[in-house]
Amino acid sequence: MKALTLQDSESHLIITDKEISAEHTEREIVKLAYAALNHRDVWMTKGMYPGLRYGTTLGSCGAGYLNERKVLINPNINWGEDPDYPDHNNYSILGMPIDGTMAEYISIPKDRVHDIPGHLKLEEAAALPLAGLTAYRALFSKAQLKEDDKVLISGIGGGVALMAFQFAIAIGAEVYVTSSQQSKIDEAIKLGATGGANYTEENWHKSFVKEHGPVDVVIDSAGGEGYNNLLKTCAPLARVVNYGGTRGNAVFSPQLLFWKELQLLGSTMGNDDEFVQMLEFVSEFEIHPVVDEIFAFDDYKSAFEKMDASRQFGKILLSINP
Amino acid sequence: MKALTLQDSESHLIITDKEISAEHTEREIVKLAYAALNHRDVWMTKGMYPGLRYGTTLGSCGAGYLNERKVLINPNINWGEDPDYPDHNNYSILGMPIDGTMAEYISIPKDRVHDIPGHLKLEEAAALPLAGLTAYRALFSKAQLKEDDKVLISGIGGGVALMAFQFAIAIGAEVYVTSSQQSKIDEAIKLGATGGANYTEENWHKSFVKEHGPVDVVIDSAGGEGYNNLLKTCAPLARVVNYGGTRGNAVFSPQLLFWKELQLLGSTMGNDDEFVQMLEFVSEFEIHPVVDEIFAFDDYKSAFEKMDASRQFGKILLSINP
Repeated sequence: MKALTLQDSESHLIITDKEISAEHTEREIVKLAYAALNHRDVWMTKGMYPGLRYGTTLGSCGAGYLNERKVLINPNINWGEDPDYPDHNNYSILGMPIDGTMAEYISIPKDRVHDIPGHLKLEEAAALPLAGLTAYRALFSKAQLKEDDKVLISGIGGGVALMAFQFAIAIGAEVYVTSSQQSKIDEAIKLGATGGANYTEENWHKSFVKEHGPVDVVIDSAGGEGYNNLLKTCAPLARVVNYGGTRGNAVFSPQLLFWKELQLLGSTMGNDDEFVQMLEFVSEFEIHPVVDEIFAFDDYKSAFEKMDASRQFGKILLSINP
Repeated sequence: MKALTLQDSESHLIITDKEISAEHTEREIVKLAYAALNHRDVWMTKGMYPGLRYGTTLGSCGAGYLNERKVLINPNINWGEDPDYPDHNNYSILGMPIDGTMAEYISIPKDRVHDIPGHLKLEEAAALPLAGLTAYRALFSKAQLKEDDKVLISGIGGGVALMAFQFAIAIGAEVYVTSSQQSKIDEAIKLGATGGANYTEENWHKSFVKEHGPVDVVIDSAGGEGYNNLLKTCAPLARVVNYGGTRGNAVFSPQLLFWKELQLLGSTMGNDDEFVQMLEFVSEFEIHPVVDEIFAFDDYKSAFEKMDASRQFGKILLSINP
């Protein structure tokens, strides 16, 4: 079968002819229709991910067919017993070091396979797993978002940010966004955001708070020098959740932290229970993940380049056997 | 009566002859034996505190006599109804803008006056209120410290840090400290610390974790560039509480935050329920607050200078009517 694999070479990625992995017991073989890209895939092509194993088929997210069933795949591998924290002796995310979804077929433990929510197309279902799970844990398990909260989602356009955005809108929260690109803010407002700010503007937080008041929850994946401005938008007792740090070291004023008694919370992907809850949530609220663009499998380079340049608004997919 | 007041002048502080304030209803007049210094008092002399009112008698902490009763004073003024956060329209800490404890007498609402824990001397009781309350909220309400936790307390020697240290030792937690001064680390080990590290040594966190393993709780009042090293000592799901930021803006790696799912929590002084719980805790475990030095009231300048230079190990007191 064709599989997109990570290579220790100039090209980083090639589609190779590869046997279906036989390493799992109690496995199923899913014929993949679509796979979705995530930032971790791009980082792997730059060597910036722990425990790289070359030759691995990339891809954490995918949906396709198990015989007649339309299914998607839970990318959690061996989370372990503790819902609060994965067992790092055994835990991994699908697509490194275990062969992932960017292939014609995937062999995967039976309990990783779920029916897709009934209202979704296969490509929407493929967009859901990692981003939906990460957003769900960050927003509900960590930030404990409630419908009367105001939430600010930074860097709108990325997969997790948009999913968190859609989940927050779904429960009726008042949602704001930031971006460096006005077009993405406008797009978010079309999808239900109450307002937005361009974080490249100096003192954007001042006009933001003046116009909209302070927020109860922030969902961020940037960190960096701008982190303190996010804290300045916060109401007392606000929860600021980070699931990423694309801008490097975060800087903040301890005075903001303790005077407002803020909580700065780290969040990773999510456990298996949260995965099931997320699927139920998506079904209940009939959420359709935003798909930015679907690339032909052979055109994977364009897909990776678009994600690397942060030009997307929503998930970037590869069409394998649609 | 004699009262140490904040002045908008070169000297900043003078003992003046002042009437006992009559601004409270349902008040008691306590004859003060000892008052304790806190960092906020020093910051006020530098103009670095919000809402300064010159002429105010300083001092958040004091103990003395209400007729025959030996009493101490709860420095919370109008916390309000929400245990999680003070009502900032009405809230203040005793000693600014309301006249504080560095005077011969204080007029104070009745419900601010508590009997001192029976095992304490008056000077120990005077050392307790603000530092004890701040430490109690940080350690138990915020960090949820349990007896099988390992806790690291940074900057040992300060009033709150030492109180948190004593509280953590009391419940049987494994306690570590940092300081820039070996003598303070040695002193903490005498008082029950399992180990300590000099945070001015490069990569101190590496040898710390190698020797002692990671910690579950950090109590910090520094922030600054060194903050990230504290996070490097943390086990997964650790809670890092800040009640101060003497080293300015804190810097940390978001990757540490989210991979370990850390919680960075801000904490201020504490509510009235926590004050009562703290007094009960101190009584139950017969904790004696560490008193660094007692200065004569007239020698207040030496007391303020010592605190400003961070030379103390424990609380610095003024003796008023011992």
